[in-house]
Amino acid sequence: MTDTLRTPADRNLSPVFDEATAQEVDALIVGAGPVGMFAAFQLGLQGVQAHLCDSLPQMGGQCIALYADKPIYDIPGIALCTGRELAAKLQGQIQPFHPVFHGQSQVAQMLPHGDGRWRVQLQAIDGAPAQWLLGRIVLITAGVGAFVPKQLRLEGLEAWLGSQVFYHPVLGDAWLDQVLAEQAAPRIVVNGGDESAVEAVLAAAAHPALQAASLVLMHRRDQFNAPEAMLQNLAQLRASGRVQVVIGMPQTIDADSRLQGLGYVDAEGKDQQLACDQLWVYQGLSPKLGPLLDWNLALEKKQLQVATDTFQTSAAGIYAAGDIVSYPGKRKLILTGFYEATMAAMAAIEYLRGEKLLLEYTTTSKRLHARLGVSHPD
Amino acid sequence: MTDTLRTPADRNLSPVFDEATAQEVDALIVGAGPVGMFAAFQLGLQGVQAHLCDSLPQMGGQCIALYADKPIYDIPGIALCTGRELAAKLQGQIQPFHPVFHGQSQVAQMLPHGDGRWRVQLQAIDGAPAQWLLGRIVLITAGVGAFVPKQLRLEGLEAWLGSQVFYHPVLGDAWLDQVLAEQAAPRIVVNGGDESAVEAVLAAAAHPALQAASLVLMHRRDQFNAPEAMLQNLAQLRASGRVQVVIGMPQTIDADSRLQGLGYVDAEGKDQQLACDQLWVYQGLSPKLGPLLDWNLALEKKQLQVATDTFQTSAAGIYAAGDIVSYPGKRKLILTGFYEATMAAMAAIEYLRGEKLLLEYTTTSKRLHARLGVSHPD
Repeated sequence: MTDTLRTPADRNLSPVFDEATAQEVDALIVGAGPVGMFAAFQLGLQGVQAHLCDSLPQMGGQCIALYADKPIYDIPGIALCTGRELAAKLQGQIQPFHPVFHGQSQVAQMLPHGDGRWRVQLQAIDGAPAQWLLGRIVLITAGVGAFVPKQLRLEGLEAWLGSQVFYHPVLGDAWLDQVLAEQAAPRIVVNGGDESAVEAVLAAAAHPALQAASLVLMHRRDQFNAPEAMLQNLAQLRASGRVQVVIGMPQTIDADSRLQGLGYVDAEGKDQQLACDQLWVYQGLSPKLGPLLDWNLALEKKQLQVATDTFQTSAAGIYAAGDIVSYPGKRKLILTGFYEATMAAMAAIEYLRGEKLLLEYTTTSKRLHARLGVSHPD
Repeated sequence: MTDTLRTPADRNLSPVFDEATAQEVDALIVGAGPVGMFAAFQLGLQGVQAHLCDSLPQMGGQCIALYADKPIYDIPGIALCTGRELAAKLQGQIQPFHPVFHGQSQVAQMLPHGDGRWRVQLQAIDGAPAQWLLGRIVLITAGVGAFVPKQLRLEGLEAWLGSQVFYHPVLGDAWLDQVLAEQAAPRIVVNGGDESAVEAVLAAAAHPALQAASLVLMHRRDQFNAPEAMLQNLAQLRASGRVQVVIGMPQTIDADSRLQGLGYVDAEGKDQQLACDQLWVYQGLSPKLGPLLDWNLALEKKQLQVATDTFQTSAAGIYAAGDIVSYPGKRKLILTGFYEATMAAMAAIEYLRGEKLLLEYTTTSKRLHARLGVSHPD
């Protein structure tokens, strides 16, 4: 996916900026992990509603993609939480500021608009048309990069991306309508062996709109890495015949005016064929810095260089925080990112307002309480 | 109290360092507010047990002295807590590392030992003998200074400090034994109008060892600033005669071989006399940087100058974090202090070990889990 993202002209995207259709935003946060989320909190506290974009379908970043169920002990004041719990706590904390989340989308291009603002092209990972934002400030909290789906390398597969082939689709209603318009009773092949693949098969089997669809779960071996409850559910669906498990690795595609089937190698090494209208690939996610490296920002060892008093990058109006940032003494911790996000957000606010920020405290400030939607007696 | 702390020779303190009786410690943290507590956490995670000292009787710093019941909204992942709650959360978080707390004590002197270690004189605020520590590293997280009791300026009062006059005493058993040895049925005057004064009167009235003592609460007006439940309790004790409230402001002391009474001005402006064996002054606490300014560390506008990659002060082995520290871009937030404490603790560990710290994560490191006293399956 990364490769295609680097050449938007290959897809059904509009690479041409059009100010009339661009969405004007005060602040865009690139990367909605814990650091980006806390940047949205600090911006919100200062009265600026943030837009966040992320390649993942929900907020949380590495906390949900890499260690959702692993323990975290070193967040100050939180003796123990999992990655998923930390993401949920932060999501609750930023709720008062109603940040706008652009999930499953990646920044493909970032260009100066000429008046200090930045043109940012958000490209949808599921193949939806690209969207242009016009941002006054951009805060890059991209961590180790965008978590993009691992690719299935089959010759000719790209032609069917966004219509019959999808990477890590989320089974939303609008997307399913589009799938079912293509074929009312599709023969669906889910390819993968981890939790996300099993979860997708279970969701598809349970979905009212997919009752006429056939469901195949294809994996290289008959062993799936998912929670016990999911595996039991899958066993029941196999026993009832609702889901068929095929052991194999995809090798070729069979297509004419549309995708018709897959060729695969089975457990004995023999070539086999399988009918397929919809191929949903869940081979896992891996982080890619991708287009960020092309934005003409000063880098050192693929990390953004920043001034440690403002966390501004080499470009005015573009700030950065978290694992993507390097400076002398840097320690890559979530706490470090929280601090840097705060420093960056406050400096960005000063840049927007053109004046020094008077530090107010959430313990006493009526103005901050109003923004948080709370009130306290004197 | 601050003035006397600056001249330890005036009190029953030993200003002379004696290596034989000095307590050797790896790390001393000066100031047990949230920042000092989190420094203890990071040191503990690296296998170093911290000693913390503070002028207050318990850990928490400004969180308990200034905004115990006020809301805090800007700690990442904690949507809302009070100052007291944050202190309690941090205390729970550092529990696995068993830090040693020296409460009600202030650092009076800090001197080089000659071998890289530091001689630190801890002076007890209640007048107990001073104690010398010999520390390999010192981490100053003194915030806005030590919270020391506000002084009552009466001529000749100092002579009775530590025997018949006490500032903000905590009614511990050992201390009460000492008080009752001086006079078995003392006439106690508690001076003050805030919660700490009311709390002291209620505690004294309820204490079995003080049933023979008489209790006067003296304040400049008949209005007390304390929670409603405490005020109701006080009203009952006044109605029963157990506590007498006297409206007045102390002006003089009446003493011969011991303190006998107070002269005060009453609500009508008339001079009055009151018998007094024990004067407990609760006029509130105010932060004083005090002796810290005399330690020959580089300062700018009464704040410690540090290198932002290590948070080391101008002296090797002495680190600093939190409100006491200044550098370009500094934002005085609790979060900032947490970050600085982490940076300082890790740099201090590298200084102790003489080698770079390999960053490990609490999500996965068996070594960190062992130090935390937890275990997780792979």
